[in-house]
Amino acid sequence: MMTTNTPIIILSCPSLSQNIGATARAMLNFGLTHLRLISPRASWLTLDARRMSANAHSILESAQVYETAEAAFADLNVIYATTARPRDMVKEVLSPREAAPEIATHLDQGNRVGIVFGSEKCGLDNETLTLAHKIITIPLNPAFRSLNLAQAVIILAYELFQNAPPMPFSDPLWEKDPLFSSRGELLDFFHHLEEELEKKGYFRTTHKRPLMQRNLRNIFARLPLTAQEVRTLRGVITTLVSPFVRTNRSDKQKKQIDKPL
Amino acid sequence: MMTTNTPIIILSCPSLSQNIGATARAMLNFGLTHLRLISPRASWLTLDARRMSANAHSILESAQVYETAEAAFADLNVIYATTARPRDMVKEVLSPREAAPEIATHLDQGNRVGIVFGSEKCGLDNETLTLAHKIITIPLNPAFRSLNLAQAVIILAYELFQNAPPMPFSDPLWEKDPLFSSRGELLDFFHHLEEELEKKGYFRTTHKRPLMQRNLRNIFARLPLTAQEVRTLRGVITTLVSPFVRTNRSDKQKKQIDKPL
Repeated sequence: MMTTNTPIIILSCPSLSQNIGATARAMLNFGLTHLRLISPRASWLTLDARRMSANAHSILESAQVYETAEAAFADLNVIYATTARPRDMVKEVLSPREAAPEIATHLDQGNRVGIVFGSEKCGLDNETLTLAHKIITIPLNPAFRSLNLAQAVIILAYELFQNAPPMPFSDPLWEKDPLFSSRGELLDFFHHLEEELEKKGYFRTTHKRPLMQRNLRNIFARLPLTAQEVRTLRGVITTLVSPFVRTNRSDKQKKQIDKPL
Repeated sequence: MMTTNTPIIILSCPSLSQNIGATARAMLNFGLTHLRLISPRASWLTLDARRMSANAHSILESAQVYETAEAAFADLNVIYATTARPRDMVKEVLSPREAAPEIATHLDQGNRVGIVFGSEKCGLDNETLTLAHKIITIPLNPAFRSLNLAQAVIILAYELFQNAPPMPFSDPLWEKDPLFSSRGELLDFFHHLEEELEKKGYFRTTHKRPLMQRNLRNIFARLPLTAQEVRTLRGVITTLVSPFVRTNRSDKQKKQIDKPL
């Protein structure tokens, strides 16, 4: 896979410097150079990290750091989340081998792809997982699933490096605009939707809100939505909450209804 | 690959306890449990090794230790050697993906398969490499080939775990007796051959002997020889050096000539 558009490896809350260093080394072994860290619990520039990176220092030095998954994903078009165990979430699950040609296709079409890995201790939280399009699970010995973080990264990096041929999408609609909306555009839609739902008392109790929000986000997060489709969805919300009745396209409310906000 | 016959991971001169521990963990992640160590430079039972093994302690505790590659390979039928760089040696080179179905076939047919990995600092020495049937090279970023030992092991283990279907051999002769001779039987043949050559002054100077021996061994080491074929080769040597002329099968020298020694 010799394209300048390579996937971005994202570590969520990594807790050991050595693992961040070993991840950088594993990435560079297979030509990946873009590392993002979400709320790291350990420094990625310690002596330990550098030593474990075996001279892949430039990856550590250019790592981008974010406070939240939302911020780390904002400018990316496609997100894959890796988890060891199946979750109770409606989301397609792929093996690394199945994911590789798909990712090659996305990159080929100009999408920016992120692959997010959970922390050593507790994996990925459900909020982060919700924001992914799909899940990647590495098939493991069911009796011993304790996979080291950098080992998980290298298996993905290795598969991506195997010259997986881009895989054509079968959806004819999709071929017209192969570029996904950015996760940031989708998040703006979520915030818009949730704000309007909040006003209408949709989230009945405070403690139910996180689960209701997660289930709702997951419906859209896993779809391959174009930027135009996200704008359409936002138009739908604006229309639904508007006190005006939309009659025809020359109606003077049109502008207010369709404006992307 | 759900067979009780699984490949044996062999580390040649490993120099860091942590790497032996991380190798054990990587093995168990993909259901491999047999570890051999050739002349280890570090202990495989330190706290560091155990910690890095993440509870794959039983692999460390049951690791078998040998002084030489010859001893470690003696009871095995098929040996693959992993190297990062191509060597100046006439030996087939496979990727992990190409090797996996082959290895599945050997295991399926009852062969004991060893996969040997070099040390962190200097890889595999040529003497060890010579004893292998084939070489496995992991395709890597040519600008950064510094692959951690346990990372190399996990990529092989991962590939072997991908349910690679056994691959039928195309050689019809081979189908009759799919069991390879043990490396020990082949080594006995080498020693026999080299001893006879020594007597005839074949190894002209002491300093040339290692290279001449290596080139000679490599001719046979890479062949899929059955135990019967190795016995035949030994018979050939015995015949060649015998002062007697072999006339027919009832000749009284026959026994001396064919005896497997």
